[in-house]
Amino acid sequence: MNQNVKYPMGFRAAGVACGIKKSGGKDLALIVSDAPCVAAGFFTKNAFAAAPVQISRAHLKNHVARAIIANSGCANACTGKNGLADTRKMARLVARAVACRTDEVLVASTGVIGPYLPMEKIGAGVNRVAQELCAGGLHDAAEAIITTDTKIKTASLDLEVSGRTITFFGMAKGAGMINPQMATMLAFILTDAAVSAPALCKAGRCATERSFNCVTVDGDTSTNDTLLFLANGCAGNSRITPAGKDYTIFESALIDLCQSLARQIAEDGEGATRLIKVSVTGARSEKDARKVARAVATSNLVKTAIFGQDANWGRIICAIGNSGASFDPGKITVHMGTELLFAKGAPRVKSEERLRRIMENHEVPIHIDLKCGTKSATVWTCDLTYDYVKINADYRT
Amino acid sequence: MNQNVKYPMGFRAAGVACGIKKSGGKDLALIVSDAPCVAAGFFTKNAFAAAPVQISRAHLKNHVARAIIANSGCANACTGKNGLADTRKMARLVARAVACRTDEVLVASTGVIGPYLPMEKIGAGVNRVAQELCAGGLHDAAEAIITTDTKIKTASLDLEVSGRTITFFGMAKGAGMINPQMATMLAFILTDAAVSAPALCKAGRCATERSFNCVTVDGDTSTNDTLLFLANGCAGNSRITPAGKDYTIFESALIDLCQSLARQIAEDGEGATRLIKVSVTGARSEKDARKVARAVATSNLVKTAIFGQDANWGRIICAIGNSGASFDPGKITVHMGTELLFAKGAPRVKSEERLRRIMENHEVPIHIDLKCGTKSATVWTCDLTYDYVKINADYRT
Repeated sequence: MNQNVKYPMGFRAAGVACGIKKSGGKDLALIVSDAPCVAAGFFTKNAFAAAPVQISRAHLKNHVARAIIANSGCANACTGKNGLADTRKMARLVARAVACRTDEVLVASTGVIGPYLPMEKIGAGVNRVAQELCAGGLHDAAEAIITTDTKIKTASLDLEVSGRTITFFGMAKGAGMINPQMATMLAFILTDAAVSAPALCKAGRCATERSFNCVTVDGDTSTNDTLLFLANGCAGNSRITPAGKDYTIFESALIDLCQSLARQIAEDGEGATRLIKVSVTGARSEKDARKVARAVATSNLVKTAIFGQDANWGRIICAIGNSGASFDPGKITVHMGTELLFAKGAPRVKSEERLRRIMENHEVPIHIDLKCGTKSATVWTCDLTYDYVKINADYRT
Repeated sequence: MNQNVKYPMGFRAAGVACGIKKSGGKDLALIVSDAPCVAAGFFTKNAFAAAPVQISRAHLKNHVARAIIANSGCANACTGKNGLADTRKMARLVARAVACRTDEVLVASTGVIGPYLPMEKIGAGVNRVAQELCAGGLHDAAEAIITTDTKIKTASLDLEVSGRTITFFGMAKGAGMINPQMATMLAFILTDAAVSAPALCKAGRCATERSFNCVTVDGDTSTNDTLLFLANGCAGNSRITPAGKDYTIFESALIDLCQSLARQIAEDGEGATRLIKVSVTGARSEKDARKVARAVATSNLVKTAIFGQDANWGRIICAIGNSGASFDPGKITVHMGTELLFAKGAPRVKSEERLRRIMENHEVPIHIDLKCGTKSATVWTCDLTYDYVKINADYRT
């Protein structure tokens, strides 16, 4: 664990194993704020939003929250009325254990889609996790939300706002079923800053768009994607509103924090050996820039070629051509690292050996200039490997 | 080779190895009709349409053709003006060898994107392949267009039209970079029927929509997809026009033939061990039905689960939820084979063991009833396996 990690004031957390995961690993996380929080949430756009997504969305209507309860190992998705009842019960159990209102509890679940939650185990687990709450428990909580992740994903930073230090801490999980147009699988961002609900929503939306919505592992948007922002005001700064210098600092910090977590998700994509950064410039619109970046980042053929360190750059061009974005195929340029691949409609590769060496690095940058505008976008992804197939052919056993 | 294969009258063909493929396999196919053909073509929608696609599209303007020259091992895509010049030269060489006009020659290429065609090898190859033309050479031609395919894909049938027997023969290649919204990689359908250009175009479009446009292997649409229909009239039937009983028989035969080839493509998808048939009924529109079928058929997570015979049916629901189609999540039903998976928003799986047994079969049928309309669609795909990654991490070596 990073020794420089910073915790915002007024939050306590814990993570325990309550028996949902067959592995016996931690699978229940609880985060509680001493003071009521201003809260914002961003959720999956999948039509089968899981029970915890539906309930948390409802609980967030007034933008107030006190606690987050999250389990891994079972997504409680596609579980109908029973699933909704189970999520409501989870929130009630937590409200009782930490003495707050039920609608101040946000619930998140991640894991296999379909099965019902083992409510007896969760009931016992909530009691236990509530007893273990402490200021340093955020790391355990971050561990308790992971599934096929190989690493715990956290990020923190602090900064001065009008003479006061405010601190941010974020945790995220996600390695498969990861795709833009959503929050991510699960990410919780905590801060002790005092901030108004409109300012938190605005900054949160902006940070989401430039971070979690720019990550893809396999093109599948999960039923459970949940991104929560909680701000408890314990730092004592004067309240940040949606305009002015303090807001700009706050938003930019949130973007940094979320990008760090999003990058960690792409880097830890199921079976990944490479982080691939696809940046697009010169687009007519940001939407077009994203379409192109996403088409390249979701192409199985591009991703397997990078895994095999095969300088088969034609697949990048093919993916760009499938993106549906508007551009002139005779004008665009494509680079991998510093190597020019394609310009003026024709191949420009000078040395496949140099391309192969670029692909030996942990991070492989692809840059596409559409040369027809000023808009840009960046999408992070990972390569597609034997281990991705292995993990997903046999996820549940 | 199928002993029952039927060849239409008046076509000769050959396939030779001219040295493009490193393996030394056949890589140049020539098909020639004794009489001028009515012709129709359907091409990739990728923005970087390859040189042969651009030239063949131009040559088809008047719907007349005499010959198809096709090479495998090099796609001649993303090759700029040089690539166009090479394709034009290929057509000229063939026109000289078989004594027809250059714009009566259709050209197709498939293989690696980026490299230029080895024109010296092709020049020598065209002379050789023209010398080997014979009525029984269609099988060799079909062999010469394959790349990562493990099987040669052909289909044939004959039927009576107004007292005359007309015969169809089709060949196709394609195992990777296969996705709907296109023709397919390469498919050539030959018939000795007499048919008007509007009738051939209409029946061709209809057959394409219901066959090649309903196949996906990896969601990537190639730069070279080309589907050609040639009808030389040698059967002597009275000319088929776009209406009436003869047209209906003709169209339905073309659909059958194309579906057989399309199914062969999905079945031989790179690394495939299973054929997956995703059928959607009860949709508000055919477009919605296709969106749902395609979302399931392109989901890496669904495809790896079927490879692993893991009854992780929640991934099917998740993919449906990402499709963007309009339906009520609480109403739909989902079956695998005869087993109900999901209905009224909740899980209905009775026996995972029975699901596992369904996935042991070569063909795995998934049926989704959206229960909000009368439209339907079927998409064929294959599972995602270690061998897909292996083939594509190392395609060129």
